[in-house]
Amino acid sequence: MVIADRRPIVDLTEEQARRALPLKWGLMPAGVIPAWVAEMDYAVDPVVMEAVQRALADGITGYPLEREPALGEAYAGWAARHFGWAPSPEAVRPVVDVTAGVRLAIDVLSGPGGVVFPTPGYNAQHGLAGITGRTEHLLEVPLSAERAGIDLDRLDRLFAEGARTLILTQPHNPWGRVFTRAELEGIRDVVVRHGARVVSDEIHAPLVLPGAEHVSYLAIDGTHDHAVAVVAASKAFNTAGLKCAQLVVPSAADRARLDAEPMSRNDSWSPLGVIAARTAYDDGDPWLASLVERLDQQRALLGSLLADHLPEVRMRPVEATYLAWLDASAYGHDAAAAVALERGRVQLSDGASYAPGSTGHVRLNFATSPERLTEIVERLAKAWT
Amino acid sequence: MVIADRRPIVDLTEEQARRALPLKWGLMPAGVIPAWVAEMDYAVDPVVMEAVQRALADGITGYPLEREPALGEAYAGWAARHFGWAPSPEAVRPVVDVTAGVRLAIDVLSGPGGVVFPTPGYNAQHGLAGITGRTEHLLEVPLSAERAGIDLDRLDRLFAEGARTLILTQPHNPWGRVFTRAELEGIRDVVVRHGARVVSDEIHAPLVLPGAEHVSYLAIDGTHDHAVAVVAASKAFNTAGLKCAQLVVPSAADRARLDAEPMSRNDSWSPLGVIAARTAYDDGDPWLASLVERLDQQRALLGSLLADHLPEVRMRPVEATYLAWLDASAYGHDAAAAVALERGRVQLSDGASYAPGSTGHVRLNFATSPERLTEIVERLAKAWT
Ligand SMILES: Cc1ncc(COP(=O)(O)O)c(C=O)c1O
Ligand SMILES: Cc1ncc(COP(=O)(O)O)c(C=O)c1O
Repeated sequence: MVIADRRPIVDLTEEQARRALPLKWGLMPAGVIPAWVAEMDYAVDPVVMEAVQRALADGITGYPLEREPALGEAYAGWAARHFGWAPSPEAVRPVVDVTAGVRLAIDVLSGPGGVVFPTPGYNAQHGLAGITGRTEHLLEVPLSAERAGIDLDRLDRLFAEGARTLILTQPHNPWGRVFTRAELEGIRDVVVRHGARVVSDEIHAPLVLPGAEHVSYLAIDGTHDHAVAVVAASKAFNTAGLKCAQLVVPSAADRARLDAEPMSRNDSWSPLGVIAARTAYDDGDPWLASLVERLDQQRALLGSLLADHLPEVRMRPVEATYLAWLDASAYGHDAAAAVALERGRVQLSDGASYAPGSTGHVRLNFATSPERLTEIVERLAKAWT
Repeated sequence: MVIADRRPIVDLTEEQARRALPLKWGLMPAGVIPAWVAEMDYAVDPVVMEAVQRALADGITGYPLEREPALGEAYAGWAARHFGWAPSPEAVRPVVDVTAGVRLAIDVLSGPGGVVFPTPGYNAQHGLAGITGRTEHLLEVPLSAERAGIDLDRLDRLFAEGARTLILTQPHNPWGRVFTRAELEGIRDVVVRHGARVVSDEIHAPLVLPGAEHVSYLAIDGTHDHAVAVVAASKAFNTAGLKCAQLVVPSAADRARLDAEPMSRNDSWSPLGVIAARTAYDDGDPWLASLVERLDQQRALLGSLLADHLPEVRMRPVEATYLAWLDASAYGHDAAAAVALERGRVQLSDGASYAPGSTGHVRLNFATSPERLTEIVERLAKAWT
């Protein structure tokens, strides 16, 4: 997609970042550089920010609409432009955030069978099986695999053992993988064979980097009767705190089941989040194009910094997201994140929080300035070697 | 409490209200006056609004802190000033909204037994028993009762039949009741006898009007081992869309159970909601005092308007909230809300959504200007008589 009138990415100074990102930066002791939680050290797209500020100036602090048709239109338009496939606007339902949307889909649409969760997997979604009252089946991807994928035989076995829902993360965090159409078709075949369901968490879809292409699980033939996608502008636009994601429900029967639920199941999204999402989808392309370009540069920079300073670290290819999954075990540190913090004053995410029991792995957030990323890798080199 | 430097209540014009309150006003056809959903036709306290706007100007659109100690301090200080009783700040946990807090408390702290829900009861909380996987036991208060209260014999019977949790709404919506210390002690005695639990929804506590006094269920001796309260500044300050309420958990054992849950159970509150709540609690008293004074005047005005124009309507005494529960059945309309809308162009809340199966009752929201309230009652008189 060619975008005229690009808006630039503005790097936050440390002082600005400490104010703007209370979780990522606010808790860091002086001198520690955070590269953990999935937030970016960039100013929010000014067009999105202005829209939210205007809403607040209008006094919008109360309840949102019970249906948000304009949000469905905005998402469908955006998806059509970016992915060449879009749901019908009526298929889109607001939810407060992606994780709540995954929970809602399992609670309402999945039978009582277990939930398959591939690991390494997004740490805050470990436990989703438990809170929906279902057995958790971990589908472990070997950490040594060159190109992480879903093991279809193992998936087949887990369904045979009674699992009934797959949480798919497409693109995947922390693998950085974008599943191909062929891979998704393979997953679909196994799912269909068992009459199982899929909840496809596609929050990272806007962050697919050059070289890969996002295919929604819902863009695969024969998925609409058993799958929903949970999507959001919040990860790409740094607005997770404004609280609105979207559940895409292509099946009319599934929509009827969701709509028949008491509103206490799903009435927590914010009107400011709706406005942020609509604006991002309708008017955010000139900023998102700059973001993707920047993240592509940061990805390349990280690769060359690692080659120079930490040649033994193995980085899984990053096809999407701004999160790199690193294997630092060659340097002999089981607790690589702890060593990075103690000796290097860099806060990474501990790999064990994504892949329980694993050692030597970390997740590194590279959505920062080139200078800060350079400093991060130089510090890691001193800490680990 | 004597408050210097009061800030005045600013009435929204219809044009402003249509922009500021998309749910309450935005959906109304031209010419219809909304008096339904619990939002006020007043501008948000400018001190709270400025704090939220400043946070946004700082770029705070991302994740909040995992713990919010300053929020606990703010709530505890406010409760001590207003009610003469306060939890320890460590007892306070953020949640996205009150209904989600009630759900969380039942999910995590209540055994599998059923949930007692007194009716008429807040419509969006009908069904909370169902979504937490528990049987719903309705505890019906006779609509003809002069002063609505919890029937302790019936409560006793429901617990004997297997219910294990009471959802208490204190003050009550839509009864307008503020339960007295003696009533709460009576409830406690029944609860303790059965080893049951209480979730006390106290969202309306800041809106207790002159003549009544709020007593938290947690201020009653012997409740801390079996009860939590769900509180918020959002109803009194018109900020439900900013998404932060608070769960007050006096028992350390209960807190440990909550804190051991996966974060996907409870990580959806917004940092803007936290700032709004903290500001309201810390700095909102000069506005809240004006609000309570205004609502007291509106309550009196409503009483005299009804006496003049609709003398056969019975209004339950409004001790708290800005919501009047009216029995219009003397005028012979089973569907009083529908008639009000069709013939009077006033949108009320249908009583049947609070008390399933009831007829002739409506809930009227009087948090508006004296002029608009006058117009509302004049229209109702034309519609109903
Ligand atoms: C795969 C995935 N899903 C969901 C989320 C969080 O989304 P939300 O905050 O909307 O629940 C993240 C955050 O990084 C994520 O990586
Ligand atoms: C008793 C009661 N609880 C809860 C709520 C809603 O609170 P929230 O929007 O925080 O879930 C209301 C709204 O009017 C209410 O009357």
